[in-house]
Amino acid sequence: MGPATPFLSVDLERMQANIARTADAATARGIALRPHAKTHKCIEIGRMQLAAGAIGLTVATVGEAEVFAAAGLDDLFIAYPLWVDADRAARLSHLAALGANIAIGVDSVAGVERVARAGLAGRIAVRVEVDAGHHRSGCAPELAGDVAAAAMRAGVDVEGVFAFPGHAYAPDARARAAADEAGALTAAVAAMRAAGVAPRVVSGGSTPSFDAALALDSPVTELRPGVGVLGDAQQWELGSMPQNDLALTCRATVVSHAGGRLVLDAGSKVLGADREPWASGFGRLLDHPDARIVLLSEHHAVAELPGELPPLGAVVRVVPNHVCTAVNLVDELAVFHDESDAQPAALWRVAARGRNS
Amino acid sequence: MGPATPFLSVDLERMQANIARTADAATARGIALRPHAKTHKCIEIGRMQLAAGAIGLTVATVGEAEVFAAAGLDDLFIAYPLWVDADRAARLSHLAALGANIAIGVDSVAGVERVARAGLAGRIAVRVEVDAGHHRSGCAPELAGDVAAAAMRAGVDVEGVFAFPGHAYAPDARARAAADEAGALTAAVAAMRAAGVAPRVVSGGSTPSFDAALALDSPVTELRPGVGVLGDAQQWELGSMPQNDLALTCRATVVSHAGGRLVLDAGSKVLGADREPWASGFGRLLDHPDARIVLLSEHHAVAELPGELPPLGAVVRVVPNHVCTAVNLVDELAVFHDESDAQPAALWRVAARGRNS
Repeated sequence: MGPATPFLSVDLERMQANIARTADAATARGIALRPHAKTHKCIEIGRMQLAAGAIGLTVATVGEAEVFAAAGLDDLFIAYPLWVDADRAARLSHLAALGANIAIGVDSVAGVERVARAGLAGRIAVRVEVDAGHHRSGCAPELAGDVAAAAMRAGVDVEGVFAFPGHAYAPDARARAAADEAGALTAAVAAMRAAGVAPRVVSGGSTPSFDAALALDSPVTELRPGVGVLGDAQQWELGSMPQNDLALTCRATVVSHAGGRLVLDAGSKVLGADREPWASGFGRLLDHPDARIVLLSEHHAVAELPGELPPLGAVVRVVPNHVCTAVNLVDELAVFHDESDAQPAALWRVAARGRNS
Repeated sequence: MGPATPFLSVDLERMQANIARTADAATARGIALRPHAKTHKCIEIGRMQLAAGAIGLTVATVGEAEVFAAAGLDDLFIAYPLWVDADRAARLSHLAALGANIAIGVDSVAGVERVARAGLAGRIAVRVEVDAGHHRSGCAPELAGDVAAAAMRAGVDVEGVFAFPGHAYAPDARARAAADEAGALTAAVAAMRAAGVAPRVVSGGSTPSFDAALALDSPVTELRPGVGVLGDAQQWELGSMPQNDLALTCRATVVSHAGGRLVLDAGSKVLGADREPWASGFGRLLDHPDARIVLLSEHHAVAELPGELPPLGAVVRVVPNHVCTAVNLVDELAVFHDESDAQPAALWRVAARGRNS
C-alpha cells in the first residue's frame, strides 16, 4: 500500500504509454513537442519526455526553469508573459550564463522593452503570446507585429509566437478551440511578417485540443500539451482521455460512512479544489465510475455511489479534477509498476513544487 | 517589496489583533479556545495563540500533530474521524510516549474499536464527532451514546464530543449554523449521559459561527475557530470579518492588460482554487474592493475593475478566498510590521505544509 494515505500514485506503464502515444502522434505529423512540465514538476518525467523525442520542455515560471535547468534539462520555454523585474532579470541572466537555452513569453510592447532594459537582449529569446479565444493573457493576433517590431528595434530575438487555447476546457469545445488557435496563429504570423519578423516557432497546445490541432492544416510547428502525460478527471469528463489512460490517482482511506455516504481522507489539500462548472464533482473514483464526489473540504471528500459502500478502512483511488494542482500539493509521487504492489517501485520528488515565482 | 511575487504576506498587527479579540471574546464567556492550526501551520502563530490564552491547538492530521508537538505545542486535538491504520497507530503511540496530550475524533463504533485494537486505550483520548447539519462526517447526535459506550467498553477514554458547523459557510447562515450546532451538541451530551458517559469537553466551532456561538445558551465548553486568525475573502464576503481585519494577502505583479483587464502573476498554485457558489470570484483585491477576479488559472488571475487599471509592473494585494489552502501552497509567510516596508520583518516557515496524513 505504500505511504500513509492520502498520497499520489503514478501508474508507470500508463504514463509511459501516454508519453509514447503523444510523441508518436506529433512525429507522424512532423510537429515538434515541448511538453508543459508544470503538470508533473518531476525531473524523472521530464527526462522520459525528452527521451521520447520532445525537443525541450515548457514551464510556467522562472523558478520552474531553474529547477529543470539545474538537472540539465535546459532547453526551456517559459510560456508566460513575464514582467521582468530586477529579481527575474538577475535569475534569467544567470540561467543564460549557465548555458541554458531560454525563451520567454511577451504580450506587450512594454513587456518586451523590459526584457531589453534588463540587458537580456541576445541572451534569451522571446515569443509573442497571442489570445486565441481563451481571453486570459496574450495580445490580439493582429497586434503581434507591433510587439515583434518593438523587440526587433530593441535587439531582442523574436523566436516565435504562441497561444494557449484554454477554452478547449469545456464540453464539445476541443475542435473549435483548436481551429481558433490555428486562426489566431495564422493571423499573428501574417502580422509579424508584415512587420518584418519571420517567426521560427509557431507554438500551440493543450491536452484537450491536441488531437484536433494535429488534424488541422495550420501554421503550428510545435505543441505544448501538459496534462496528458498523467491525465485527470477533467480530461476523462471532456472525453479527451479514456479512463484507462489515467495514470495518476490519489489513494485515500474510507474513514466514515456518515449519512450513508463514503467519506475519504483526501480533501482539497491533496486533490486541489479545482472544479469547472461542467465537472460532475470534485474528482472521480477510478474504480467506481458511477460515484460522485459531492462535497470536498480540506481533508474530506464525500462521495455518493449506488450499491454497497467500500468498507471502512478500504483504500480507494481518486482521480483529481486537475492533475497539475494536485501534484503541486505533494513533495513526492509514489510510482508503481503494478498498482497492486505493496510498495512503490520509486518515489519521485516533485522537484519544482511551489516554484511560483 | 520582499520576495519575488507572488508571495503570501502577513500583516502582523492585524493578526495579533485578531488573536487578542478572539481570545478576549471567549474568555468573557468562560469558554475555552482551541484554535485550528490547519489554517496557519506555523509554530510562531501557534505560540502566539497559546500565549493569548488558548488551552491547546486543534489540528486535522497526525502529521500536523507531529509538527506542533515537536516544537513543544503538544496539547492537541486531531479533529478528524481518523481510521487508525498501522501507520497512524505507531505514530500516535509515539506521540503519546513523548508525553503529548492527544485526543482524536471518532464517529463510529468501528472507528473506536480500531483505537482500542491499536493499543491506544489509556494513551490517547477520543472525542465523538456528531453531525450538526453540515453533513460531512460525524454520527447523528442521538448515536453519540453508542459510540461513547463502545469506547467505554474498550477502555478508551471519552474526553468529549465535538461538531463542526461547516454549513455556516453560506450567506446568512451563521446564526442558524451556530444554533444547529448547539442543538446537536445538546442532544449528543444527553445521549452520552444516558449511555453512562459524561463528556468533559463539548467542542464546537468555525470562524463564521464564532460570534453567534458565543451569544447562545449552549453546552459548548470550547470553540475551535481557524480562519479568523488571518481572515480571507470568504469571511469578508460572508460578513464575519471586515476588510480591515484581513491579515493575509498574496502580493502579485500586474503582468498584462490583455483585453483591458488586469492579469496578475498569482494563480491557483498560490491562491488555491476554492470558490464557493456564492463567492464573487476567485479572491478579492484588498485595495480595489470593486474588482472581481473572473478567471483563475495556475499562474494567472484575471480581474475586471472599473476605472483606470494599475500599471504593468505594479504590485497589488490579493485576498485568497480560503486562507487555509493558500497557506498550504507556500513554504514561508513573509511577515510585515508595516506592509509598506521594503523587506519583511520575518519569514515564518509553514512548518506543517503538506502534512496530509
